[in-house]
Order: sequence, then structure tokens, then C-alpha cells
Amino acid sequence: MTRPVPMAEVHRGDFLESVHLGHAVVARADGSLERVWGDPDLVVLPRSSIKMIQALPLMESGAGANLRGEQLALACASHAGEKRHVETVAAWLEALGLDEHALCCGPQPSRDPALFEEMIRRGEAPTRMHNNCSGKHTGFLTLARHLGAGLDYVDPEHPVQKAVKEAFEDVTGQPSPGFAIDGCSAPNYATTLAGLARAMARFADSGKGSGARDRAAATLRDAMMKHPEWMSGKGKACAEIITAADGRAVVKTGAEGVYIAILPELGLGIALKIADGAGRASELAIVGLLVRLGVLDADHPVVSRYMQRPVLNWAGLTTGFERAAPGMLS
Amino acid sequence: MTRPVPMAEVHRGDFLESVHLGHAVVARADGSLERVWGDPDLVVLPRSSIKMIQALPLMESGAGANLRGEQLALACASHAGEKRHVETVAAWLEALGLDEHALCCGPQPSRDPALFEEMIRRGEAPTRMHNNCSGKHTGFLTLARHLGAGLDYVDPEHPVQKAVKEAFEDVTGQPSPGFAIDGCSAPNYATTLAGLARAMARFADSGKGSGARDRAAATLRDAMMKHPEWMSGKGKACAEIITAADGRAVVKTGAEGVYIAILPELGLGIALKIADGAGRASELAIVGLLVRLGVLDADHPVVSRYMQRPVLNWAGLTTGFERAAPGMLS
Repeated sequence: MTRPVPMAEVHRGDFLESVHLGHAVVARADGSLERVWGDPDLVVLPRSSIKMIQALPLMESGAGANLRGEQLALACASHAGEKRHVETVAAWLEALGLDEHALCCGPQPSRDPALFEEMIRRGEAPTRMHNNCSGKHTGFLTLARHLGAGLDYVDPEHPVQKAVKEAFEDVTGQPSPGFAIDGCSAPNYATTLAGLARAMARFADSGKGSGARDRAAATLRDAMMKHPEWMSGKGKACAEIITAADGRAVVKTGAEGVYIAILPELGLGIALKIADGAGRASELAIVGLLVRLGVLDADHPVVSRYMQRPVLNWAGLTTGFERAAPGMLS
Repeated sequence: MTRPVPMAEVHRGDFLESVHLGHAVVARADGSLERVWGDPDLVVLPRSSIKMIQALPLMESGAGANLRGEQLALACASHAGEKRHVETVAAWLEALGLDEHALCCGPQPSRDPALFEEMIRRGEAPTRMHNNCSGKHTGFLTLARHLGAGLDYVDPEHPVQKAVKEAFEDVTGQPSPGFAIDGCSAPNYATTLAGLARAMARFADSGKGSGARDRAAATLRDAMMKHPEWMSGKGKACAEIITAADGRAVVKTGAEGVYIAILPELGLGIALKIADGAGRASELAIVGLLVRLGVLDADHPVVSRYMQRPVLNWAGLTTGFERAAPGMLS
């Protein structure tokens, strides 16, 4: 096993205060590895970074044929629970003849600061539709209805999850060693970091071949790219990075320090895992990698904010900065 | 430089999902080291873990002679901004002829969930008194008044900070390589992890010698031990651990993964730093170390919650657990 390498740093004054180690793989669509940091065989739970894989059966089956691009992005999103996200999920559920109680994800407070406070002021409890995974779950329900299956769609034996597992093992190119239960109660299949990067290279390269899986991957990739703020939310990392990449990258975060990138122009996929699970570090590391690969411009006003992000204290003073570890950039 | 060692683990299902590495030192009052994990010479910013050192000049000068035990604990605390904490700071400031505007720490939302929501409902903005450091700052102001000095007490050249630096270098037993600005805008002096552990051993052993510094250290240690909920807040880690230790330990957290412990019965001091800065890990690691040293009973109802802490998802399902790394326990 290869040790993890420094991927992000937190500085305070003249001191390097904290360091995040991690593993990363850049893979080509043919399955070969372009570059590795740390251990490509590390088994990871990809968490929310694979929502586009979990949405493949929705598209391949034809169940999602009439969905708008925003809905497709939402099915692949960890959305912020903004008003537009919640309203779209509500209308989508209604079109299925369902309501929020059909969702198996638990209630989560909105990550839109204004809506978060507004709901507290109104005494409104967060709903399952505010959960960052509610789009994915509504996609699962859409497929379940299409298949005429029951609504217990997070059961690993349910036809929806069996289809997800088959797609997952296909695009990662290897059998999964098993699953754990995700933050939204759905099964989350494990794979190696190399497998995860290969899956993303396949999304990057999709739309050139034939077959339902290839078409589904291309459709989802393009929807994610066209609707960045439906992938996370206003001012959130995934939305900002996809927007800044301007057609050259789709990125998606996963809990516990996972990030993936799909690079259509280069035909590459990236997967990275911060060993300690820190989201602040995975964000900095993926931006660093994308700058290194020429996909992001370090001088782009959004990107430069991530390249050396100031750390502010409660009084608004800059006390230090966070950045991708220099080794990620050269 | 010695590499950091595994200190805390996050498991999901059957998978080890994330691992936190760190460094720790157990020191004796004579300055010798009882046990080391990782690098004892690692330079750390101790952050809030040294508030009891920052309060030494307050007591040594006599400025704090008439303060109650709760106030002394609050001067050493990262309090939760509960109503009682804020009211005590407000009355203390008033007794100095000052109000919250004299505090140099910025406003911070309360960490008491009920008060946090209540303030949003009422449209009340967080104040500087809600800042977790407001007790420390009121202590600084008390000393500044006593010295007849100005109120710019976070200036490194101010007599208060000069006295703090002198005390810090004395109890750590070594010159500080410098300072950075803390989350509350005060200077935070750096030291080695061994220096930090030695300082805590000195607090552990205080009350036996003579001199103002020894008496001040004993008074502060005893106040922290007697008023755990004034050190953090109801249900918060420091309060729970100090309570569970029942006179055998004072502990204090610092931002970016720092934790210290003062063990009077054993005459030992502990300092640990999680390399990636994660608070979830420092909490688990310090509990693990205290169990190992026999200071905490693993079967104590509070302690057992930390020994293998369940990870719950938004639906309330247990998806895994967090624990101190097994190597910390044996």
C-alpha cells in the first residue's frame, strides 16, 4: 500500500498549522492510469460523488426520457436545498403521484443561509425534500414506478438498487467489495480509487459509442455541465468549479473527502480521496489538479479564490490561508 | 521528524472510511517525557488549549483576586455562548465599567442550539459576548484595567500580551518561535508539542510549591475542574470529559485538532495535535488516552459514548462509528 501524499495545507500567520493527506488517480477512458498520487488500489466509499452512476439506470431504462436538464442535474446533485431545488423536487414527486413521504432520505436543514434562517423564523421544520439527495431519490422513485416495482427503493435487493449495482460494477470495471449505508439511507457501493477514476473517464468519453449506457452517460454529463447551480447551489464549490471550467469539466463532491472530475475534452476521469475525510481539503485539491491539467485557469476570478483561500476569524481578520499542497500543482 | 500515527478512525458499514493521524506527548512535571506518539518537537499553535496559561497573569497580578470560580473557568473556556455564559460576561464587563464593545473578539453565533434558533427567531444578531473566547477577553480587560493600561489588549506589545508571552515561555520551558493571530484576534504563541505537554504537567503539579505562578496555576486548575459546564457548555466534550474524570483530569480543546489534559493525581500533562486539524478526532483521541492512563473508566456512561461513537445519518440510522485508533488504547 502506498502512503497518502500531502494534498492541502492550512496556514496561520507564518505557521503551517494543518496538513491533509490523500490519494488521487487520473484515468483514461481505455482504463489506463495517466497519473497516480498515493494508492490507486485504495478501497473507497465514493459517497455522493457517484450520483451520476446511480442515475444511469434511470436514463437507460427510458424512465427519465421526459425529464428536463435541471431535473437530470438534480438527480446527480448534492443540492443546497434552495427554494428552486425543493420546488422542483416537489413538482416532480407530484407528477409521480407521490409526495415527500415517499423519499427515504431523512430531513436536512437547507444549506441556503437565507432559507435556513427564514425556516427557523417561520417555525418550519426541514423536510426530506431539503435533503441534498432528494433529487437522486426522486430519480430512484421515477425508475421504481417505471419498473412497476415497490417504493422500498433503498433496499439493496430492490430492482432499482440491483440496476445501480450492475451499472456501478460495469463503469468502474470491477466487482464491488460491498456497500455501506449512505447519509441518505441508500446503499453506497465501494470500489478502488482507480475504479472510480475509470468510471469518470468513461463519462468523459461518452457520446461517441453506441448503446443505452453510453447515451445515458453523455446525457447526464451534459445536463450536469449545463446546470451547475442544480448540482450544488449558488456560491457552492461544485457549481463554481463547473462554471469556471466552461465546458471542460464536471466535478462532484462526496462526503468524507471525495471529489471526482469528468474531463470530456481530455477524455480523462479523476478521483481523489482525502484520507481524513475533510471536505475543505478535497475542494482545494480538485481545484489544484484541474489547474495543473490546464482545465482551470489559476487567474480566473473564481479559481483564484480557491488557489489560496484566506482564513478569516470572527472579527473578519485574515489570519492565514488554505491552499492545495504545492506538490499537487507541479 | 517522526511521522504522525493513527489516532482516530471513522467506519461506515464494514469499511474503514477515514483515518486521522496525529502527534501526542505525555509529560511529567519535571519536564521529562513519559510517552510520545509521533513528533514531540512538532511546532504547534495551541489555539484555545492554552487559555489557562493566558489567564496566569490575571491571577498572578492579583487582578483576578475577587473573581468567582465560574468567572475563572470562563476565562479559561471556549464556552458555548449559553445564556448563563453571556450574562456572566455582561455583568463582569459592567463591573469593569465596560460593555461588549470593549471586547476585541468578533461576534459568533451561540453554540447552544436552542439559543441559536431563539436569536434567529427574534432577529437578534450574535454579539461579541457570544464568542467562545469572551471570558478570556474579559479576563484580559480585567488585567488591563488593573495595570492601568489601554484597552488595545490584543496588541502583542500591550502589557497584557507581554505578560502572557512571559508566562507562556516559562511554563512551556522554551522560547516561543513566534505567534499567529487566533480566531478571537489575540496573539497565539507557538511551541512544541513537548513544551505544551510540559506546561500542562506544571498545572497538574501546581499548588505544592510557592510563588504567585504556582498558586495561580492551582487556582485556575481547580476552578476549571469544579465548573465543567463553564469550560464549554451543557453536553459539550470538555464539560462531559471533566465531569466524567471526577477530579482526575481537566481537559481543554483547541481549534485545528488540539487537545490538552491536566492530570493532578498522576502529575502528568498531555498535549495532542491531529495533523489534519479535525476536532472530531482530537476529542476521540484524548478520551482514548485518558482511558489508557486509567483516568477515565471506559464503562462510564459518558465515556462509553466517546469510545465507539455511532455515526447517524439524516434519517437517524446508524451507518457506522467513530473511535480512537486502537493503537492509542494499548
